Amino acid sequence: MRFIDVITKKRNGKVLSSEEIDFFIKSYTQGEIPDYQVSALLMAIYFNGMNHEEATHLALAMRDSGDVMDLSQIKGVKVDKHSTGGVGDKVTLVLAPIVASLGAKVAKMSGRGLGHTGGTIDKLESIKGFHVELSPDAFIEQVKDIGISVIGQSGDIAPADKKLYALRDVTATVDIIPLIASSIMSKKLASGADAICLDVKVGHGAFMKNTKDATELAQLMVDIGRLAGKKVTAILTNMNQPLGHKIGNALEVYEAMETLKGRGPSDLLDVVTTIASQLLKDANIAKDDEEAKQLITDSIQSGKAYQKFEAFVKAQGGDISVLEHFEDFLSSNKVEVISNKDGYIIDMDALSIGNAAMLLGAGRETKADVIDMSVGIDLHKKIGDHIAKGDVIATLYVNQKGIEEAKSLVLKAITTGKDKVEQNLIRGIVR
Amino acid sequence: MRFIDVITKKRNGKVLSSEEIDFFIKSYTQGEIPDYQVSALLMAIYFNGMNHEEATHLALAMRDSGDVMDLSQIKGVKVDKHSTGGVGDKVTLVLAPIVASLGAKVAKMSGRGLGHTGGTIDKLESIKGFHVELSPDAFIEQVKDIGISVIGQSGDIAPADKKLYALRDVTATVDIIPLIASSIMSKKLASGADAICLDVKVGHGAFMKNTKDATELAQLMVDIGRLAGKKVTAILTNMNQPLGHKIGNALEVYEAMETLKGRGPSDLLDVVTTIASQLLKDANIAKDDEEAKQLITDSIQSGKAYQKFEAFVKAQGGDISVLEHFEDFLSSNKVEVISNKDGYIIDMDALSIGNAAMLLGAGRETKADVIDMSVGIDLHKKIGDHIAKGDVIATLYVNQKGIEEAKSLVLKAITTGKDKVEQNLIRGIVR
Repeated sequence: MRFIDVITKKRNGKVLSSEEIDFFIKSYTQGEIPDYQVSALLMAIYFNGMNHEEATHLALAMRDSGDVMDLSQIKGVKVDKHSTGGVGDKVTLVLAPIVASLGAKVAKMSGRGLGHTGGTIDKLESIKGFHVELSPDAFIEQVKDIGISVIGQSGDIAPADKKLYALRDVTATVDIIPLIASSIMSKKLASGADAICLDVKVGHGAFMKNTKDATELAQLMVDIGRLAGKKVTAILTNMNQPLGHKIGNALEVYEAMETLKGRGPSDLLDVVTTIASQLLKDANIAKDDEEAKQLITDSIQSGKAYQKFEAFVKAQGGDISVLEHFEDFLSSNKVEVISNKDGYIIDMDALSIGNAAMLLGAGRETKADVIDMSVGIDLHKKIGDHIAKGDVIATLYVNQKGIEEAKSLVLKAITTGKDKVEQNLIRGIVR
Repeated sequence: MRFIDVITKKRNGKVLSSEEIDFFIKSYTQGEIPDYQVSALLMAIYFNGMNHEEATHLALAMRDSGDVMDLSQIKGVKVDKHSTGGVGDKVTLVLAPIVASLGAKVAKMSGRGLGHTGGTIDKLESIKGFHVELSPDAFIEQVKDIGISVIGQSGDIAPADKKLYALRDVTATVDIIPLIASSIMSKKLASGADAICLDVKVGHGAFMKNTKDATELAQLMVDIGRLAGKKVTAILTNMNQPLGHKIGNALEVYEAMETLKGRGPSDLLDVVTTIASQLLKDANIAKDDEEAKQLITDSIQSGKAYQKFEAFVKAQGGDISVLEHFEDFLSSNKVEVISNKDGYIIDMDALSIGNAAMLLGAGRETKADVIDMSVGIDLHKKIGDHIAKGDVIATLYVNQKGIEEAKSLVLKAITTGKDKVEQNLIRGIVR
């Protein structure tokens, strides 16, 4: 097989066979095909797409390019979730302890943040002592022991995806739905869970700007998962405004803990409840949504969810004595953002707010940047709230960096109007 | 400027500015942009095309990536021609001496053959002693002296095109009309002629398979040339069957000499006359086609054309004593191809016949192959001729290689029918 024939075939709008996709991924991973041929293929895929079978073959070939986690030692149903990336998205921090407290097994690998989106692994590292690199054995032992572990991505998971992603990043071939879907699913399938719930973000602050694209991506990922023998569901959730009120690493851990204690913002709780319900049903812990919701409420109100969070932090070396005074980890330099507008907030550009937090130091502009855990944004107002000139609409937790720019970005992100609008939080469920 | 923004812009169907194209070519030539980014851009151009201004900027940027020949020392109008590549195409060998004998200045760089198409430089090298590498000074002196010189392409002409072509060749981005046009024109513009006539081949044996594509390519090259301040015309000529009767290096030189002596095949003479007439008008030597044709006929009949050929061969070190017995340079091993069909020849696949000649050793399958000058094909029959089973339709001049395969290819290339058909040789003129 010659790789130029594979490029030509896709360029001419044909469907690639599983053998051709295997050849592509194996040869590329082994360094037998040069980047310049692969980028030509990627651009041809941008224009001619891939069908669900091709995307599935691609996901499976990338999964098989490295280690596939064997979680068979862990009794019970192993659940996993994935977010396509948003602003203020601390869902995993709340959801994982809840479902673990109810008997689901959470053996999860998470990522770091880049650009305007944060990463769960970065957020967890804002807890003093918390470490995210466990050996496979320690990881599995912890899940067997307390039902939950969240670690960084191992170096041997889907190396083909890693190599391909780096190339896509510099060749204008990132935003291609079948490549996004197979990239995400290659890692999820390699992570070894039985049931996976995908949180596909839709809106300004998400990679998918509209429901049509988000639904296409969600359906493709669900189909890939199913063709690979997994229970996969996707929830489309609103990312026109940040999720919850707090953006930034320690700030988000703080808001997650508040939510686990029953004092969290309703939008965050709603997304957590929707995804957790799905996973509890998939794990045969709840028979329907009603029962699942009751179990989730009980777990929070009884304190079991928060206790599971504490056990999880402790198991991975975190200092739980700091959790009760976690505000101490926020920067003591605060700057208020004062409204220059009157009216109901009808839009709040999540992308700008994510970028504002990044400029303060809460995120990375490039992979090499170091995160400042203590900075971020606390939004006092969200879409549907009424504001008047002079109101404090947000508090910035700052150090040296980006203060004026961030302030201006937050102000510009807010659009007001005369009439109150409501946003639909859950945009759809794809099975 | 970031190159990824240039890729994204073209991917999104926008027009690249001259600054962006300059940045692309300069940075790529200097090794500041990696191949993998350029191949992504090339594939985006495959899908979204380039308009005439973009293709012109690209041709000019590639021209300026290396040396531009300064022919100002040569008095008179410097003329050039270019063929997009065909089978049996020995037009330059006939045309150049004719127009030089009439006062046009031919300071020409030519290429080598690859695949089923031959190259003028290879053909000239079948003449004992002929050398194709002259210093720029010697080249110019020869044109000043006898009005004609044909040399191989210098290493410093359009290096950006050379680098880009090598990348296109391995990334399925060769057959893109604006890239073909700007590649050809970058070299033609760097060659310094005042008037250029492009012979755009159309048909089975050509890169352009149909008149629509050929016309598009021709019009684009003419526009590029005009925007760059040159007199450029394109002639579309038939390449459904080989041009003339002979294919192979020494064989083609022999047929070219016969044509210069007034004994050549009519199709070859017609193409030569059409292109030569155009150049003679552009050089203000003939006022119209009628006068040009008369001058060409006179040049051949008076012997001046052939004398110019001899002077040209001698000036570049060729042994003119061998020319009168040039058959001696053909292989003495001949194989006859016997017809297995009855009827009128209605089609003769030039590509297959070109490949047959290549298999005999007359052409290169890869750039590293060495050509056997003495082998080739002499076609006794062409489209419109009647054949019967048992007729000798071609003679193969062979050595060890590819005899049976070539025989079978020639036989398969011929389709017969009940009714005589005629092919239109000149398919159009684009100005």
